[in-house]
Amino acid sequence: MSRGGAFGVPYKIMNAGEEAVSRVHGIDRWLLRGFLHAMGDPLIHASLWDGKEVVTPAGASQVGMTIHDRTTLWRVLTNPLLNFGDDYSAGRIEIQGGVVAFMEAMYKAMDKKQPLFKKTSRGRNRWDTNSITGSRENIHHHYDIGNDFYRLWLDRELLYTCAYFSHPAASLEEAQIAKMELVCRKLRLRPGQSVVEAGCGWGALARHMAVKYGVTVRSFNISHEQIAYAREKAQAEGIAGRIDYVEDDYRTIKGRYDAFVSVGMLEHVGVAHYGELGRVINNCLTEQGIGLIHSIGQNRAIPMCPWLLKRIFPGSYPPTLREMMELFEPLGLSVLDVENLRLHYAKTLEQWLHRFEKNREKVVAMFDDCFVRAWRLYLSGAIANFNLGNLQLFQVVFARAANNRIPWTRSHLIEAPAQA
Amino acid sequence: MSRGGAFGVPYKIMNAGEEAVSRVHGIDRWLLRGFLHAMGDPLIHASLWDGKEVVTPAGASQVGMTIHDRTTLWRVLTNPLLNFGDDYSAGRIEIQGGVVAFMEAMYKAMDKKQPLFKKTSRGRNRWDTNSITGSRENIHHHYDIGNDFYRLWLDRELLYTCAYFSHPAASLEEAQIAKMELVCRKLRLRPGQSVVEAGCGWGALARHMAVKYGVTVRSFNISHEQIAYAREKAQAEGIAGRIDYVEDDYRTIKGRYDAFVSVGMLEHVGVAHYGELGRVINNCLTEQGIGLIHSIGQNRAIPMCPWLLKRIFPGSYPPTLREMMELFEPLGLSVLDVENLRLHYAKTLEQWLHRFEKNREKVVAMFDDCFVRAWRLYLSGAIANFNLGNLQLFQVVFARAANNRIPWTRSHLIEAPAQA
Repeated sequence: MSRGGAFGVPYKIMNAGEEAVSRVHGIDRWLLRGFLHAMGDPLIHASLWDGKEVVTPAGASQVGMTIHDRTTLWRVLTNPLLNFGDDYSAGRIEIQGGVVAFMEAMYKAMDKKQPLFKKTSRGRNRWDTNSITGSRENIHHHYDIGNDFYRLWLDRELLYTCAYFSHPAASLEEAQIAKMELVCRKLRLRPGQSVVEAGCGWGALARHMAVKYGVTVRSFNISHEQIAYAREKAQAEGIAGRIDYVEDDYRTIKGRYDAFVSVGMLEHVGVAHYGELGRVINNCLTEQGIGLIHSIGQNRAIPMCPWLLKRIFPGSYPPTLREMMELFEPLGLSVLDVENLRLHYAKTLEQWLHRFEKNREKVVAMFDDCFVRAWRLYLSGAIANFNLGNLQLFQVVFARAANNRIPWTRSHLIEAPAQA
Repeated sequence: MSRGGAFGVPYKIMNAGEEAVSRVHGIDRWLLRGFLHAMGDPLIHASLWDGKEVVTPAGASQVGMTIHDRTTLWRVLTNPLLNFGDDYSAGRIEIQGGVVAFMEAMYKAMDKKQPLFKKTSRGRNRWDTNSITGSRENIHHHYDIGNDFYRLWLDRELLYTCAYFSHPAASLEEAQIAKMELVCRKLRLRPGQSVVEAGCGWGALARHMAVKYGVTVRSFNISHEQIAYAREKAQAEGIAGRIDYVEDDYRTIKGRYDAFVSVGMLEHVGVAHYGELGRVINNCLTEQGIGLIHSIGQNRAIPMCPWLLKRIFPGSYPPTLREMMELFEPLGLSVLDVENLRLHYAKTLEQWLHRFEKNREKVVAMFDDCFVRAWRLYLSGAIANFNLGNLQLFQVVFARAANNRIPWTRSHLIEAPAQA
């Protein structure tokens, strides 16, 4: 995968500011209005490189944008869903009034007036890049860019998935522990059990399960940096004997386990591969085994934003609940419980963004300003999407159909969560 | 809809016992073995009209059946899924060792060895009979056969849907109240709110909501007898002003409500009509409204047993969770919570069957022995199917995508349920 600059945005090709001196013509203003109309007339103000506001719809708040040159105007007009992100990253577009609020205004407009953005066919990305080798490249692109970077803005155990704020004042650290507790309770883990984990990030859930629940864990991940970190950490904590971190694809999982867990991997699997993942689950779960999948989802099958797919999460796709059922239905597995933690993800992302911005200078030093802007846009857009209900967070608990040792009630979930 | 006898089984055409004197030939035994082999070699013993056991597989328990004449043997051979039920009802087949245990043995065998029974195409019944007029006939067939009959074996409030046994020793009465409590908590009802109910049975949930939660309810049902009972009961309890029982189809629901609830109706809607029901929901729910659908379901899209469809529940079908999503996904509604109460339905049905058998003589007097046997088979088969995981019970909570007043946690569900 070739990368222009530190992050892949071709901003070196376009020299930002180059055209800033050229005069704004009537046609430029007309094109800007046309662009905004095509986006559903968002309630934002907008201006061009002369600084004068071209568009100020009634009811528009302080939220707005400035396009700095004519090339950028043409670029966002011709391919807004890809180029807006790149040109914001390159500094050729500025956003006023906060990126989250701006993205919310944009998404609201696109949602309301442009069924085009909402009803694209089947949701599956056109090109499936999630073969075993393709997945490695896709995961490498996002997760292997440096543990030091993620340490700047994730919680101290490096959980890069939706936290669970069991009370409103919970810190990110507490909420991530509460999430792990919730997952363990839903799996009803008991000492001596074996767990297999598909996609383990930096290994925090495996450590939590091994230490707090006395289980043995085999955790799979194809991110080299994450696995290296997880192994070191388990070694340092003296629990390496109870956790086997395996640098390999979920499709290579063998053996039988009392629990199957996957937190934040399904987004990278691709609907075309749900049959494979389903068969892995079906082969590895004991007769009385319980499984849990935690994944970003959506209410309608809409493809990922092309910019996000190209720059941030190649190969990713948040399934609808209907699509998730393609994991279970062909094998006759029973869905026992689904919980939607959408607003928890908005809150998690807000905390990440806050920490990210606090460490902005350090991130610039690690990468560059373009990277910072791209990640700000990604995190802010995700907050907006979770707030607006364009994205969901599903925790799905499942078991074999004939397993009658499933819980009768949810009373096993309600004990006070562990504190940090 | 023409009915032979009190219940529709054509047992008057076939004179039970007529052929009981004819000799059992080798070919009869060969045919019985062939029938059982075709059913997946269930672990049951089987005999013909000479009383001698023809089949006793290794590992068979005391569970077995006797076929009383040659016509019946041919009938179950040629169309087992329809004729077994009719001929058991007519007394031409006897079951030993308990009907539930017998049905479990049969279903287990069919499940294991006969993918034929499991993988039939799309699950939807071939003939859709759930138009507005068709639904009336279908519902009339089952629910209008006499409130006195249902009073014999349902709980005192006449709830004919899965109860919720929040503790193992709960009575059916307690468990039905706990179910209504669970539904109300999931809807987070508050005094003064308005609720619309699609399919209200004898009206118990509407009364519970009005009395315990101070809401006003508009409840739809096309069963004439149920609506008449519900109106009388509300009148007698002095709450008729807070509940409007409407004898009409869910498709005629108008207005906007704070909550939409449907307990045990979706099974009668038919997947072909989920789009209509979804639009009704979407039109009637306020922006902050919460909805709940409680329905029998299954893990795979398998059509109903033809006998059950013909004799007990015309037009019915238990959807998979994937199929249920066809209610929500086209409209972009958010699924907030799914709970599977499968084992609660097995327990509910056990209590119904127990009460039914205790009142056997009264039911015979109301209908006839054929009716009793048919309903025993239906209730027993349902217990077996819930025990084996062939049927599920899904409670699905949903809301509009942009509704951010959804609950953060499940803490609103966990208060001790009300007692009877």
